[in-house]
Order: sequence, then structure tokens, then C-alpha cells
Amino acid sequence: MTGYQQVSTSVDARSAAVELSRSAVQARLAACGQVVGPIISTYWWDGEVQDAEEWLVLFKTTEDRAEALIEHLRAAHPYDVPEVICTSITGGNPAYLTWIQQETHRQQPRSAP
Amino acid sequence: MTGYQQVSTSVDARSAAVELSRSAVQARLAACGQVVGPIISTYWWDGEVQDAEEWLVLFKTTEDRAEALIEHLRAAHPYDVPEVICTSITGGNPAYLTWIQQETHRQQPRSAP
Amino acid sequence: MTGYQQVSTSVDARSAAVELSRSAVQARLAACGQVVGPIISTYWWDGEVQDAEEWLVLFKTTEDRAEALIEHLRAAHPYDVPEVICTSITGGNPAYLTWIQQETHRQQPRSAP
Repeated sequence: MTGYQQVSTSVDARSAAVELSRSAVQARLAACGQVVGPIISTYWWDGEVQDAEEWLVLFKTTEDRAEALIEHLRAAHPYDVPEVICTSITGGNPAYLTWIQQETHRQQPRSAP
Repeated sequence: MTGYQQVSTSVDARSAAVELSRSAVQARLAACGQVVGPIISTYWWDGEVQDAEEWLVLFKTTEDRAEALIEHLRAAHPYDVPEVICTSITGGNPAYLTWIQQETHRQQPRSAP
Repeated sequence: MTGYQQVSTSVDARSAAVELSRSAVQARLAACGQVVGPIISTYWWDGEVQDAEEWLVLFKTTEDRAEALIEHLRAAHPYDVPEVICTSITGGNPAYLTWIQQETHRQQPRSAP
């Protein structure tokens, strides 16, 4: 069986989150992207605990596309060390999972060789 | 040990999201539902990458109720091929996990036969 | 390999969610916390299905810190039986995962013995 993954990232501007979502879907590295936010992120920075406004992006993809999606997000993301984490999808609506598979493996129209 | 699942769906109206959440909890197919949004969903549609406003619904349930919850969401959802995905809950507050188990297996009051 | 976990909780006030997020990061029980919301939570209470406004908090941590994080959230949370659930992180940006490991295992400055 094909395995499926949810992959997430976060970034400090809504427009950057939408752009990460659109570029990954455009490249068929994910079947869909979902931008959630604004959220409040908290972490240690410069010796103190700080808060920042961010947006979360959730992607659905197949296991065999996950590595390429991670690479895409690392390259396209404005941060040096962006959050990119994966969790396994263990089940769901079979027709929806098939749609993820199809959307991430569809051939693009192309001009004749 | 009983296993636990987080099950999620998304839909294009806040009222529909709340209704999916309430109907699943009412039927004790999930211990709770959480509606998050609005979110921005991006996917290929009609030959181009499109954005749409949606709401995410997150459910907590047991492994033995997950299939019935998926079927409920498929039947109650307005889309032909709704997003329904499951991820495994691998731990947590033991008292909260017990509450999920109890809420999804409680007998409803019923009239005498 | 070190394993990584996403741990989540929810609470009925934005300020309480931010405080849970900050206190866990301050104690280095998680590398970051993310507050999402408001969300609409639905559950059975007092014999009927009820809705309440809540905020979700998502933490990233290592497997060896997850139990201490769960205990911290149980102790610091205003509810008797708070939601605390864990899901496994199965991959991601290697540099980000290393950052989670470092942030949750960094020595605090301390005074001489």
C-alpha cells in the first residue's frame, strides 16, 4: 500500500505561508496545502523566551513525495532552519487518499519533444 | 491497550464544520471535535491551482470507533470526496485517554423496550 | 536515532494557552510552543452536547522529554483532566529536528555550587 504523510511548516508572514502552500501544490509535491493562523509561536531566542506571530502550513502528500517536499520547503523558505516535520497518515477516506496519490503523480501537460 | 486516533476533515463553511463536529460527538463516534479556522486551502482544480476558505475539524476517538467515524463523515459531508485522515495518538495524559474511551463507549439513555 | 513528538493541549483562555506554551519552553520541556485559535470545542457535558471556545497549543519535543512535558502540562493546566495527546514525528528537516534536540537539552546558566 502507498503510505501517506502530513507535512507541516510555519513562517512569519501570511503571504509567505500562502506562497509556500501554492508553490508546493503547483509542483505536485503535495495534493493540498492548508494555511492556519495567525498563531503565536514561542521559543528561546537571544537568551530569552520570545513570542512571534506565525502561520502554519499543513500539506498532505505520499511517502514517496515527502522527501522532495521537505527539500522544496527548505529551499523556498525564508528561514535558515525552517520547521518542517512529518507525521504518518494511518487511515482515512479511501477515495481521498487515492486523490492524494493521483494529484501528486499526475503528469503535467507538456509541449512535444 | 486501547489505541487512540486523531481524525480530521475540512469543509467550506463554518456552520458545516460545527455541524460535522456536533453530529459525530452526538453519535459518540468521537469524544470531542475541534473546529479550527478559517484556513486557506490550496489545490489543483479545473486545470489551475486554486485557493478556498475552509474550516478544519479535529476529532479524538478510539481505534475501534475510527472506521465508524470515517463512514459518518463521508455520509454527512457535503463534498463528494471529503478529506478524512487519521493519525495515531501515541501517548498523552492517561486520564484524558480514559475519558476518550469512556465518552465513545457510553450507553445512551433509552426508553424501555 | 532520537525520536521526536508533537504534543498538544487545549484550554479555554488565550492567556492560559500562552502561559502553558511559555512555561513549557522556559523549562526546556519543548523546543517551541504554538498557540492556535480561538477554536470551537464540542463534547458531552452535563447530559448534553455543548460547545466552548478554546485555544490549542502544539509543542515539539524529543521522546525523552515527552513524559516530563505531559506531567508539566497536567500540573500547570487549570482543568482537572486536561487534553494532552502525543503524535510521533516521523521525519522532517534534519537541521530543525537537531534544533529540537538542542533546545530541549541545553544547560541553563546556574550559579556556582
